[in-house]
Amino acid sequence: MAAKVNLHQQFERFHDHWHPRIVATVNDYDVKLVKVQGEFVWHQHQDTDELFLVIDGQLRIQLQDHEAIILGPGELFVVPRGVRHCPAADQETRLLFLELRDTVNTGDADRAGTVGERLI
Amino acid sequence: MAAKVNLHQQFERFHDHWHPRIVATVNDYDVKLVKVQGEFVWHQHQDTDELFLVIDGQLRIQLQDHEAIILGPGELFVVPRGVRHCPAADQETRLLFLELRDTVNTGDADRAGTVGERLI
Repeated sequence: MAAKVNLHQQFERFHDHWHPRIVATVNDYDVKLVKVQGEFVWHQHQDTDELFLVIDGQLRIQLQDHEAIILGPGELFVVPRGVRHCPAADQETRLLFLELRDTVNTGDADRAGTVGERLI
Repeated sequence: MAAKVNLHQQFERFHDHWHPRIVATVNDYDVKLVKVQGEFVWHQHQDTDELFLVIDGQLRIQLQDHEAIILGPGELFVVPRGVRHCPAADQETRLLFLELRDTVNTGDADRAGTVGERLI
């Protein structure tokens, strides 16, 4: 059985941006932590929704044909499948997100992405 | 498209214990909030893992044939499918948890349960 996960402790174990770490698995979904700063890349996931929960900082989720969503600590948002989006953060921001296993963070964008690495 | 969810604001909207509220959906999974105090009931979910994240307070997850897991704020744990467990909290504790749609909180226990109600 996996151990419990202390989010703060796990965030101290890595320092790069836009590089998710997998800290838990629920059935075929991975719980990932990531530090972000700056703007990511516009992309979409055709086959899966994506949950973002801000742990620290502020995340701006830009959405195609929709006003951007601004998330602070303790706020979550689900980007529906097929909705083009681009996360961005002015300051370093810590996120927990949930993705179907094997989901690549850049989705359909013309940029190499990653599913993230297992931290635990 | 659903709006963002502020966990603190949503927790202020209900006051009963062990009665989950659904605040977001990711594919076929529901994100639920619940306030707990006291001891729940021993049960298991045969077909699904269950993720618990403590937002405020302290949760003790008693596990069959395994030491109990103590979670504080910002700590999460996944109870694997088929593992009999019993959550408990001495003080009122606020949890976010993730369950496959239609999962009843009492699992296989001989007590009526609920999948929770949609808050948003």
